[in-house]
This record gives sequence, structure tokens and C-alpha cells, in this order.
Amino acid sequence: MGAHGIVLFAHGARDARWAEPFERLSARLAELRGASAGPVSLAFLELMTPDLPGAVAGQVAAGASVITVVPVFFGQGGHVRRDLPAILEQCRSANPSVEIRCATAVGEDADVIEAIAAYCLRQALV
Amino acid sequence: MGAHGIVLFAHGARDARWAEPFERLSARLAELRGASAGPVSLAFLELMTPDLPGAVAGQVAAGASVITVVPVFFGQGGHVRRDLPAILEQCRSANPSVEIRCATAVGEDADVIEAIAAYCLRQALV
Repeated sequence: MGAHGIVLFAHGARDARWAEPFERLSARLAELRGASAGPVSLAFLELMTPDLPGAVAGQVAAGASVITVVPVFFGQGGHVRRDLPAILEQCRSANPSVEIRCATAVGEDADVIEAIAAYCLRQALV
Repeated sequence: MGAHGIVLFAHGARDARWAEPFERLSARLAELRGASAGPVSLAFLELMTPDLPGAVAGQVAAGASVITVVPVFFGQGGHVRRDLPAILEQCRSANPSVEIRCATAVGEDADVIEAIAAYCLRQALV
């Protein structure tokens, strides 16, 4: 059995500095998983590269047999509800022997919301 | 001295369900602060209401003398680096007696990144 990869799927932006938190997230996740667990990659919907098919192809080439895509979006808007499923179908068609899963957007997680609320609370104490 | 309000500033989307995590965040933050600490409101850059000047006006009318705007964005792209400062200037001009502060985007916080990384890690264990 091959490795289980994780692709962090984000929106993308014109400003290169926009990607910095995603790069930190990717590095931290790779550290938490350990190198032997499988690859961690970033992918973007638009304005930045790689796109999701490119990131998936990279992980398949590196030996991933299962890939979990995690949408790093707060809300389940049109990008997560419409654009992403269409791109996932494209990825599955291109890689029929690979199991490509998709998680719920990170903003739907109670612990993520809790961490953001705690951050906001601290900002009003300064 | 009046109350210290917090306005959570988000992007906005066409799909009303997109706002759900922000509504949960706002409710949780209000709970953490306690009702006496000051108001907590949502505001949107586009596609949803209220906009930031509207949310600020509402908090000023409710007696806030200090307002901290927290950008609920992952990265510091054009919206946070260019659009938001311009809107903040507009809010300050309209409310010269109110101190309007702005926090760093939530995605820049190490604890928020940690919570997102932990969520991503759990998704690949399923």
C-alpha cells in the first residue's frame, strides 16, 4: 500500500505574501505527521500554482495511493460547494487507481472556531 | 468610558451558507467575552451585509468608544492590505471620537494555524 497524502486546497491571491500562512500550515502539518506518513502539499483554486490536479499528480508520482484534500476555507461557499467537486472529479478521472477523499472545510471545525475566537478575544484585551 | 466592540471582518459570498462559520464564531466570541464587555458584530467586504462602515456605525450607536476590527482572513492579501485600510480610514473619518483599531488577520496567529494543522491531521487518520 502506498502513502496517504494530504493536499491543502486554498483560494489563491495575486499577492505572494497571501500564501505565507498556508506555507506555515503545510510545514507544521508535515512536522506533526512525520515524513514517513506521506506527502503534504498546497494547491490553489486560482491565481497561484500548483492547481489541485497538479498537486494530486505530484503526490501520485511520489507514490500516494490515498489522498485527502482539505479545503482551507472558512465557509462552504461556491468555491467549496461547486468548484471543488468538479475539480475533484477531474482528479479522480485522471487517477483512477488512487482514492481521492475530501474533508469538510477547516472553518467548520469546532476547535478551529475556538482558536479563532480565543485570538479575537485577545485582540480586544490589548 | 464606553464599551470596547469587536467587529469580525470577513470576505462575504453569494451563498448564504458561507456565513455560517462566521456566525458561530461571532456567537462563541460573544459568549467568551460576556455581554458586559461590549458588542461583537460581523461585517463583510462584499456580497453580504452589513459592510464595515455599517457595522461600526451600529456599534457606535450602541455606545462603543473603542472598536477592534479583526480580519477573519487566512492570508494578508489585497483585501487585507489595500481594501481594508481604505475602509478603516472611511470609518475613522465618519466617527472621529471613536478609537478604531485593527488586528492582524487570524491566519497569522500561531494558535490558529496549530488548530487547523491538528484538524488536517485528524482528516488523514479517518
